[in-house]
Amino acid sequence: MIGLGRMGGNMARRLARAGLTVHGFDALAAQGENPLADEPGVQVHADLARCIAALPAPRVVWLMLPAGDATDAVIAQLRGLLKAGDLIVDGGNANYLSSQAQEKRLIADQIGFADCGVSGGIWGLQNGYCLMFGASTEHMTRLRAIAQALAVGPDTGWLHCGPVGAGHFSKMIHNGIEYGMMQSIAEGFALLKGKPQFNIDLAQVAELWRHGSVVRSWLLDLTATALKDPKAFESVGPLVADSGEGRWTVDEAIRQGTPAPVIAMALMSRFDSQGSADNANKLLSLMRKGFGGHTTQRADS
Amino acid sequence: MIGLGRMGGNMARRLARAGLTVHGFDALAAQGENPLADEPGVQVHADLARCIAALPAPRVVWLMLPAGDATDAVIAQLRGLLKAGDLIVDGGNANYLSSQAQEKRLIADQIGFADCGVSGGIWGLQNGYCLMFGASTEHMTRLRAIAQALAVGPDTGWLHCGPVGAGHFSKMIHNGIEYGMMQSIAEGFALLKGKPQFNIDLAQVAELWRHGSVVRSWLLDLTATALKDPKAFESVGPLVADSGEGRWTVDEAIRQGTPAPVIAMALMSRFDSQGSADNANKLLSLMRKGFGGHTTQRADS
Repeated sequence: MIGLGRMGGNMARRLARAGLTVHGFDALAAQGENPLADEPGVQVHADLARCIAALPAPRVVWLMLPAGDATDAVIAQLRGLLKAGDLIVDGGNANYLSSQAQEKRLIADQIGFADCGVSGGIWGLQNGYCLMFGASTEHMTRLRAIAQALAVGPDTGWLHCGPVGAGHFSKMIHNGIEYGMMQSIAEGFALLKGKPQFNIDLAQVAELWRHGSVVRSWLLDLTATALKDPKAFESVGPLVADSGEGRWTVDEAIRQGTPAPVIAMALMSRFDSQGSADNANKLLSLMRKGFGGHTTQRADS
Repeated sequence: MIGLGRMGGNMARRLARAGLTVHGFDALAAQGENPLADEPGVQVHADLARCIAALPAPRVVWLMLPAGDATDAVIAQLRGLLKAGDLIVDGGNANYLSSQAQEKRLIADQIGFADCGVSGGIWGLQNGYCLMFGASTEHMTRLRAIAQALAVGPDTGWLHCGPVGAGHFSKMIHNGIEYGMMQSIAEGFALLKGKPQFNIDLAQVAELWRHGSVVRSWLLDLTATALKDPKAFESVGPLVADSGEGRWTVDEAIRQGTPAPVIAMALMSRFDSQGSADNANKLLSLMRKGFGGHTTQRADS
């Protein structure tokens, strides 16, 4: 397991607790820290080469790193360390197109590549992960025991979605759906809050809807938990980050010519929350001033 | 219980099975049919007056009728049949503004009014309903036993949301959230289907995501069940109806000036599916033809 952060660290723990032999490496480990010092089943190495050398061939090297440069840099290093027949699994949130390109590059070295979309967040260690694999049939056979250990159950919570790319593709769509669902829940509660005449207790409504309603969902469970804090709305600012998968889902909709207006709108709403609508809004104010002499908010107000 | 259709009929059954005395009336019953002939705990009457007369005062009359004219007509009749101290509960999907108006009209006759948003569909009989009440504190006290019998549990699945109107308001927002969540799930699966190169099994992905994923939800459960039919996509047309609550949620967003772009877009997508985008699309084609001589689809093609 390369990358022992919040996701990779817990996944290494879950694998070790299932009885698998796990060797780990992390940039922090290279600095002398061992984030899994309390988990004796995971042997953490101080450098990548020693970690790889400790694994008997043919190896399975699972990457749980930030997508993009961090993952690419480690794969470049691994090309010098791995042998023909070894298998790299990228469990990060990579774009499926780059996973497909990654496979092609590694074929020259006869190093196998598989991609795996991982969902489950910080609850995965306890409850198991939801895993979407993109891999050849042969590689999936080799990954079966790992999939079964990480997933919710041996036959539940993991799927061989298709060839390389299909895992990250499915995860991307999963996250796109997540954008729309979250946004819809958020908008609904904002409308409840926007009607002070009724003095509706948002926390109670969220808890109510968890039982027997059509909108019951894990995201609603999280909302109910968050709203239990009476200062929930005071505890955060309104800026919502986005981490790439929403953008890629909308890119895919454009590539396919398949409408995904709600997912796209959820993404645009996040951009808006990030202040990126300000220029358009300033122009709207200038136009309104232009045709009707409407008063406008000054830049310094 | 006035209105013994899919919702009211099952609610009457659930009340009777909880040991409450239930009298029922339905337009079908007036024609000599008894939709609850198999439920001896519910006494169905052949006319509304006899049904009301059979109830000891002070009465609770629960309406489970289509919102609008059907509900209004029965309330008009009830004004001649009920006495001061009786209480009407509208459990239909009425607009909360009309429920507030209803209460005001009935005050003249000293007839109480409460509104209740009911979620749970055809599963409610077995699993219990999710109930959102708008009522005075005094009326809510009278309705408590009914709420506890209908809901998922005695303290779960029902809520006194606020004064009259707050029940239908909360249900309206619930359904608005439902629009956005459904649409997001639907768009995501359409994008999976739109990538035939990966040959992803949609039914398997839906089943996978039910376990440990962020998007797990009752709507996803329904999607997984629907996709088990290999002819799911062939079994229905692409037109999606809308039944009012989505429109009202967007009306409310406009009234408040609170943005609800995803819920609004989900509603617009339904209109689009109903063919209502055709005129705009025809004009777009005419404009494209006008400025670029682009070929257009003929009206008869």
